[in-house]
Amino acid sequence: MDGKVVLGIIGVGRIGRLHVENIVNHVKNAHIRAVSDIDADKAKDWAKSLGIELVYPDYQDILTDPAIDAVLICSSTDTHAQLIMEAAKAKKHIFCEKPIDFDVSVIRQALVAVDEAGVKLQIGFNRRFDHNFRKVHDAVERGAIGQTHIVKITSRDPEPPPLAYVKVSGGMFLDMTIHDFDMARYLAGSEVEEVFATANVLVDPAIAEAGDVDTAVVTLKFENGAIGVIDNSRRAVYGYDQRVEVFGSAGCISVANDTPTTAVISTATGIISDKPKYFFLERYKESFIDEMKAFVNAVANGADTPVSGLDGLKPVLIGLAAKQSLHEGRAIRIAKC
Amino acid sequence: MDGKVVLGIIGVGRIGRLHVENIVNHVKNAHIRAVSDIDADKAKDWAKSLGIELVYPDYQDILTDPAIDAVLICSSTDTHAQLIMEAAKAKKHIFCEKPIDFDVSVIRQALVAVDEAGVKLQIGFNRRFDHNFRKVHDAVERGAIGQTHIVKITSRDPEPPPLAYVKVSGGMFLDMTIHDFDMARYLAGSEVEEVFATANVLVDPAIAEAGDVDTAVVTLKFENGAIGVIDNSRRAVYGYDQRVEVFGSAGCISVANDTPTTAVISTATGIISDKPKYFFLERYKESFIDEMKAFVNAVANGADTPVSGLDGLKPVLIGLAAKQSLHEGRAIRIAKC
Amino acid sequence: MDGKVVLGIIGVGRIGRLHVENIVNHVKNAHIRAVSDIDADKAKDWAKSLGIELVYPDYQDILTDPAIDAVLICSSTDTHAQLIMEAAKAKKHIFCEKPIDFDVSVIRQALVAVDEAGVKLQIGFNRRFDHNFRKVHDAVERGAIGQTHIVKITSRDPEPPPLAYVKVSGGMFLDMTIHDFDMARYLAGSEVEEVFATANVLVDPAIAEAGDVDTAVVTLKFENGAIGVIDNSRRAVYGYDQRVEVFGSAGCISVANDTPTTAVISTATGIISDKPKYFFLERYKESFIDEMKAFVNAVANGADTPVSGLDGLKPVLIGLAAKQSLHEGRAIRIAKC
Amino acid sequence: MDGKVVLGIIGVGRIGRLHVENIVNHVKNAHIRAVSDIDADKAKDWAKSLGIELVYPDYQDILTDPAIDAVLICSSTDTHAQLIMEAAKAKKHIFCEKPIDFDVSVIRQALVAVDEAGVKLQIGFNRRFDHNFRKVHDAVERGAIGQTHIVKITSRDPEPPPLAYVKVSGGMFLDMTIHDFDMARYLAGSEVEEVFATANVLVDPAIAEAGDVDTAVVTLKFENGAIGVIDNSRRAVYGYDQRVEVFGSAGCISVANDTPTTAVISTATGIISDKPKYFFLERYKESFIDEMKAFVNAVANGADTPVSGLDGLKPVLIGLAAKQSLHEGRAIRIAKC
Repeated sequence: MDGKVVLGIIGVGRIGRLHVENIVNHVKNAHIRAVSDIDADKAKDWAKSLGIELVYPDYQDILTDPAIDAVLICSSTDTHAQLIMEAAKAKKHIFCEKPIDFDVSVIRQALVAVDEAGVKLQIGFNRRFDHNFRKVHDAVERGAIGQTHIVKITSRDPEPPPLAYVKVSGGMFLDMTIHDFDMARYLAGSEVEEVFATANVLVDPAIAEAGDVDTAVVTLKFENGAIGVIDNSRRAVYGYDQRVEVFGSAGCISVANDTPTTAVISTATGIISDKPKYFFLERYKESFIDEMKAFVNAVANGADTPVSGLDGLKPVLIGLAAKQSLHEGRAIRIAKC
Repeated sequence: MDGKVVLGIIGVGRIGRLHVENIVNHVKNAHIRAVSDIDADKAKDWAKSLGIELVYPDYQDILTDPAIDAVLICSSTDTHAQLIMEAAKAKKHIFCEKPIDFDVSVIRQALVAVDEAGVKLQIGFNRRFDHNFRKVHDAVERGAIGQTHIVKITSRDPEPPPLAYVKVSGGMFLDMTIHDFDMARYLAGSEVEEVFATANVLVDPAIAEAGDVDTAVVTLKFENGAIGVIDNSRRAVYGYDQRVEVFGSAGCISVANDTPTTAVISTATGIISDKPKYFFLERYKESFIDEMKAFVNAVANGADTPVSGLDGLKPVLIGLAAKQSLHEGRAIRIAKC
Repeated sequence: MDGKVVLGIIGVGRIGRLHVENIVNHVKNAHIRAVSDIDADKAKDWAKSLGIELVYPDYQDILTDPAIDAVLICSSTDTHAQLIMEAAKAKKHIFCEKPIDFDVSVIRQALVAVDEAGVKLQIGFNRRFDHNFRKVHDAVERGAIGQTHIVKITSRDPEPPPLAYVKVSGGMFLDMTIHDFDMARYLAGSEVEEVFATANVLVDPAIAEAGDVDTAVVTLKFENGAIGVIDNSRRAVYGYDQRVEVFGSAGCISVANDTPTTAVISTATGIISDKPKYFFLERYKESFIDEMKAFVNAVANGADTPVSGLDGLKPVLIGLAAKQSLHEGRAIRIAKC
Repeated sequence: MDGKVVLGIIGVGRIGRLHVENIVNHVKNAHIRAVSDIDADKAKDWAKSLGIELVYPDYQDILTDPAIDAVLICSSTDTHAQLIMEAAKAKKHIFCEKPIDFDVSVIRQALVAVDEAGVKLQIGFNRRFDHNFRKVHDAVERGAIGQTHIVKITSRDPEPPPLAYVKVSGGMFLDMTIHDFDMARYLAGSEVEEVFATANVLVDPAIAEAGDVDTAVVTLKFENGAIGVIDNSRRAVYGYDQRVEVFGSAGCISVANDTPTTAVISTATGIISDKPKYFFLERYKESFIDEMKAFVNAVANGADTPVSGLDGLKPVLIGLAAKQSLHEGRAIRIAKC
């Protein structure tokens, strides 16, 4: 395959298919040799249309294929840790969707397996590859705003997930805010040492019945003294609201939402501009491509992946602390890793 | 004085002079009969240039003047409560700068005196009269964004006050954030029932030595279920940063900073627009005029003032709870009034 | 009157009253001694409420009053030139509303009278004092955008004037675009040497019947090589649209419309912001005050006025050339003054 | 090739390669069978890397290949018309880069050949497929701003082309403004009936020596009564400035420049946001893909192409009239087609 990184994909539901199509169309130095899915039959036509001939019902066929360099784990969350351990044992480099698991000890076990195998692991925090957030990160890192004082993240979905999903999601902090916890670490360049969470059910009472919340404000204290704050809602009627702002001793950098166009219509009613891009598939389209390029390049060049296993563990620790804070009404310290 | 409200002003330092000049130039149905100041000599030329002949060193000369309908208390904070009580006894209507006092029992005593005298009292939370914030308030009130879910306030000063002031200011929460606590109540249309504060000294270590903080994030829970969050800094190098956002079930309304002009300069370096108006005198210029008009109209028409004594008490209660929260690392409930 | 400039106002219709009230409230070093109006009775109560005792039916009473330093000519356009000449003869400094006249020889005659009398003359092109446009002018003047290449002016009214006014207005180019011709000269820092006009009646056929146009694009060539373009409409349904842009060798500066607030409402329908301030009284409120301050200061300090008699003549020349261009379908050169 | 449209590409310089790569990566229902280039050797490795095996030095090999449905003419402008005629004769559908030719009779001859052959022809006015401009077009078409009154186009390049190119480009109006003439027709929904051009050399005197201009304002009159205005510069130091605005009886729609990110950095210096995307390859990236999809779909579905041969002729007529207007200093009428 002339120098290309050879990939196998485990799980081709929505996110797995997205990665596959992005790789085929945009990642020149990768080749997808095989995909596996528990419902392999359903995936065959789609795979063939992309030139992928091998479609297995059993992921073991991928792990045992010596031609495959690396795997993408895109199956359901409860299988992630086990698959990481098996893939590591099979000496495959690993890209795994977030979260690794909701159980910290299970995550640690998976990370030990990765370390022992000496394979690469990248966790699917795609937003780090977004053009807007990366620009903020880079500006902060090069000191454009001086010392970081306040990190603000607004993250609101256009609509709640199905209730069935809410029940198994691990709760909003581990399902939705987990992206923001990762973003907070990415932007602050410092670890979170304390969390306080306030939350409520304001969008849909059924979410309360499912044992979850739908509206939250979470405050973070970072090791470098900065303070972070995240506000979440499961339903913003105007669309996917994804903004961040980092304030520091020498200034402030913020990013607004992306919109489909820059059009502004002025009428007798008012001045009207575009709503944000609808949801993550539209908003983070390019970031999904760029995270794949980054993973493939890390494998190809023997470099570190840009989102490590530890980066997969930390947001889970913060999310669990946020849950505890919500129940106890006090700030919770995060254990050092 | 043909139907005009006759005023006496107690204390003509910076804010007192501002009110006097605004009334002379912009409040047609008011007449300033006298001002008093402990340093009356210093005020005479200035007063005369505005057509004010009576300049007393002793405020008693104002309180005992039967021609005066109402007084403005613009002296130092430690005199506010006592002056309110004396003015109430003298049956003068009262406009008093914020805060009434740092001691809740002293405030309550002053409010009882006002109630018993049956005079009007307006507290100087001028930001309620700002064109931007009023538009947000009115939109929320008429239901334009549905039920309120999240209230966000960004309030950052361009530079810290002198250290000497910091030491007697009551602390950032009672000196600076107190405006934001008032704004939060104004925008949410609901009382705060719980507070959590995180803060740090990141701007100037001397502020820590003075026993205060300079950077903070404060989370609020409202009785109606909404969540509020305020972020403060004593120094934003780009100027006075005063923004709010209210998010609800049917949308979101936000206001950005006001700028001196709408100019945008595009050069090889970048696209550059104006910094915010520098500080409160520039930013809230119109609001100071409008709060005077509102007070004078309330007196003239026998109507309620738009910012009551209770509105003066509540933010102090929240500020004190924020201080306690900061020390104890837990959410603090606000006592009902 | 202790060093104040003493003024008499000739004509207290809408614009005259605006100037009077601005002077009373905002121009500290001026005193209005008298006003005259052909309907003096109607003006008496209003004048008295502002502390102006002398209200004459005959403007001669103003011109012959030795206590008066300067006059404001705010009567109808057809009286401007004659009043300038009489006021000059009476050795009064003169502020005159635009336009001086529609007849170039009449204007020249008035300017000669002013020169011979050695009095000051300022023409009422108030937009030069607008905060936005002044910022553009100053940036261009200090070289922020290098050599000027293109000057663009968008100037659209929210609604056409009454048809009766259209008929005596001198036509859109001399009534409305005249402000833009002045702005073009002010921003380009160079004289217009050639004009080409395209226009149409698209807003209201009755305007065609009155012999005028309501929609136009006018192209200008400046002596310094720059090109200008103005677009006009008599009706922008979203309000008063007043923007300029100057593009040069080192960049571009543009100003957008001013709005009542910075509020943005995001709903399921769209992202909605404020319409521009409604019309010139709201939009140019501050500029009217600042042009009065500038005139009074020029008189007080013996300085040149910032908008000279020649500045009053030039836009009329351009406007007449635009009319000719529209009829002849070709570019028309402007005679040098 | 299971239903795919089979393509041959004539000329694989910069724009030809761009189309080829876009088709390979993004146009699922097309297959590129062959490319030709006078320097075929140079193209071989590149073609092979994209899976294209057939690389001819002679375009006749493409025209005579019965497996090929359609050709893309991406060679130099002077070959366009001849190649259109030959391709039409060979019964290939045709996509041809703009302009067809600088000689109207040559263009007409080519269009006759296309008509007689009954093949499809699409001209490469890619900006019609831009997300921003399409949104403006669609809003105008559905009546969102009522009757069109004014169409404004700002089109400024970040830097002039090489002088060697300027000399053979046909002049700025036929090389650069031609896109804007097409955009004006696209947005106004009406034909241009009259043109007036003003222009100058302000960017680089060498452009004058090459017989061209580098700064221009062109006024258009449309058959529906609307007025258009285009302003051009060969050098905007802040990048590629591509904006349009359509003003009508019920409102106004405008689009601003696209930027790499939405980031805003606030510092003591000012509030700084991103410059526009640098030049057409970045700015119109998606539009190039979408014009290919549109052409392939038209061929696949037997539908009309969205940019016809007449759409290729009209802007040339307008551009020639603009040149004449510039020389004669008067408005020039466009002949009806």
